[in-house]
Amino acid sequence: MKLPGKIAIMGGGSWATALAKIVLSTQDSINWYMRRPDQVEEFLLLGHNPSYLSAVKFDTDKIKFYTDINKVIKDSDTLIFATPSPFLKQHLMKVTTSMQDKFIISAIKGIVPDENMLVADYFAEYYNVPIDNIAVIGGPCHAEEIALERLSYITLACPNIENARAFSSVFKNQYLNNSCCKDVTGIEYASVLKNVYAIVAGICHGMKYGDNFLAVFICNAIEEMRNFLNAVHGLERDVTDSVYLGDLLVTAYSRFSRNRTFGTMIGKGYSVKIAQLEMEMIAEGYYGTKCIREINEKYKVNMPILDTLYSILYEKKSPTTAIRQLTETFK
Amino acid sequence: MKLPGKIAIMGGGSWATALAKIVLSTQDSINWYMRRPDQVEEFLLLGHNPSYLSAVKFDTDKIKFYTDINKVIKDSDTLIFATPSPFLKQHLMKVTTSMQDKFIISAIKGIVPDENMLVADYFAEYYNVPIDNIAVIGGPCHAEEIALERLSYITLACPNIENARAFSSVFKNQYLNNSCCKDVTGIEYASVLKNVYAIVAGICHGMKYGDNFLAVFICNAIEEMRNFLNAVHGLERDVTDSVYLGDLLVTAYSRFSRNRTFGTMIGKGYSVKIAQLEMEMIAEGYYGTKCIREINEKYKVNMPILDTLYSILYEKKSPTTAIRQLTETFK
Repeated sequence: MKLPGKIAIMGGGSWATALAKIVLSTQDSINWYMRRPDQVEEFLLLGHNPSYLSAVKFDTDKIKFYTDINKVIKDSDTLIFATPSPFLKQHLMKVTTSMQDKFIISAIKGIVPDENMLVADYFAEYYNVPIDNIAVIGGPCHAEEIALERLSYITLACPNIENARAFSSVFKNQYLNNSCCKDVTGIEYASVLKNVYAIVAGICHGMKYGDNFLAVFICNAIEEMRNFLNAVHGLERDVTDSVYLGDLLVTAYSRFSRNRTFGTMIGKGYSVKIAQLEMEMIAEGYYGTKCIREINEKYKVNMPILDTLYSILYEKKSPTTAIRQLTETFK
Repeated sequence: MKLPGKIAIMGGGSWATALAKIVLSTQDSINWYMRRPDQVEEFLLLGHNPSYLSAVKFDTDKIKFYTDINKVIKDSDTLIFATPSPFLKQHLMKVTTSMQDKFIISAIKGIVPDENMLVADYFAEYYNVPIDNIAVIGGPCHAEEIALERLSYITLACPNIENARAFSSVFKNQYLNNSCCKDVTGIEYASVLKNVYAIVAGICHGMKYGDNFLAVFICNAIEEMRNFLNAVHGLERDVTDSVYLGDLLVTAYSRFSRNRTFGTMIGKGYSVKIAQLEMEMIAEGYYGTKCIREINEKYKVNMPILDTLYSILYEKKSPTTAIRQLTETFK
């Protein structure tokens, strides 16, 4: 396999659009899979994604669009998946083409629901992709800022670090830097957890806790994340690296974070159901909370923040009471 | 010495006022030193500090005001210093009374200028206070949020941790928690460095770097801080504790931070001199940058962020060039 080969973007959302913009800044052309034919049609007409990051103009001569997932897989060497994790299974159910000799990059921050599996593990187990051919993209990288070409940093991880490095030049331009590491599992779990913590940060914000408290919250969250990562995937890592702490920060502090917004609504008194209905995009941390909670039944890591959010989202515990009790565990 | 004994607040600024509010929530009365008689007079007339946190009302029957620093020292057992660090020497120059048998708490976040000394060391060396009787208060704690009674956390540090613990109940109420440790030196240096980093965060903000970048910046800053602290004061510490990372976060992210505001002005193109003139309060990180830079001549820790800010503030390097070069060192 010669990397990167022909690259396909899999998904039509804002992160997929940002990744397409990045890849087209370094590659001559891309394949791009979107489920809905009307979205492709409109895209071709307008020269931009009609639904997401619409300010980003594309030269559509450089894009081959697909609405058939099997065709795009056949025509591509590297598949960059950037669908929201709750929808991944639906997309993949249609796949009949082998992905065994493809290179998979997951830009999905989330767990595959029902399965409680990390995305990389899911591709390895159900699609027989060798783990050395599965990479993940992590790091503090809101799509909206990529659209604005504001300097950002991502991390590429693959158990075979040389394969990660083969993509370094694909993801490097005047507004994007990257580094490479091997910690696929740690980065995937960190990506899930930061959404969990962003919801809690939002709840606290909605309940009028201030900046002093948010800073303390982040410190306690990063400690909880470190303890969990060490338990599930012992590996030398520094959680203050940007792919862990940085991603948590940008999600917990940023106005772009839908997980934080979802939490803020709950903190302001909306019910979980209403908050979900009001959100246009899915708050992935909602699923992540349940998944990590179930995974942690095996590891029994002390995770007061996760448990608190679980009790609010799934056990109808009053946010006011739950958060007050949580604050007593903080230092 | 029976701790806490009679407590005196030393200083009339916003942090001093917040500390007075806290201490009066747990103690019957306090002594309070302010340099200016007119400020005391107005305070007594209005029932609040005329210049800072004026929304915080005080029962002035519980406060004995002093404008004579020697008298307040004589009448008190514990002196909580909360003046801006650049003014500390001026205040202390007037002291003729011994402080040898007093307990000193420094709530000053900064270095004593000219001397390049930490505040605790300054009291030990020039005023012969035993180091076991010198504590520091650290942590993410903007005075403005204490005024609003928003839940906050501080850390009390003293080489003799029992002495720190003796103050735990003084600084604990429904909006304030605390923890105790021994790392006086680390906390003091961290307090200085977070002001340095907050200025750089402000510069980047002023230059339109976004949230993705700020998160990466914080990760690189906390790593630089850890390396420096380990070099100057080897001690087992976790820089993700709120007194280190949390304080950095609240300062670098918060709209209340004058260091960040100072940086933002420079990032927007104001000269250092004009930015200083425009600021009503002193940006302590300005002095901190020079001090740490000089201290680091001995330790030679790799500190690209500190060096970059030094070149901007003291060597007239263009912020645009300096920050662009700095971003190339980030990961």
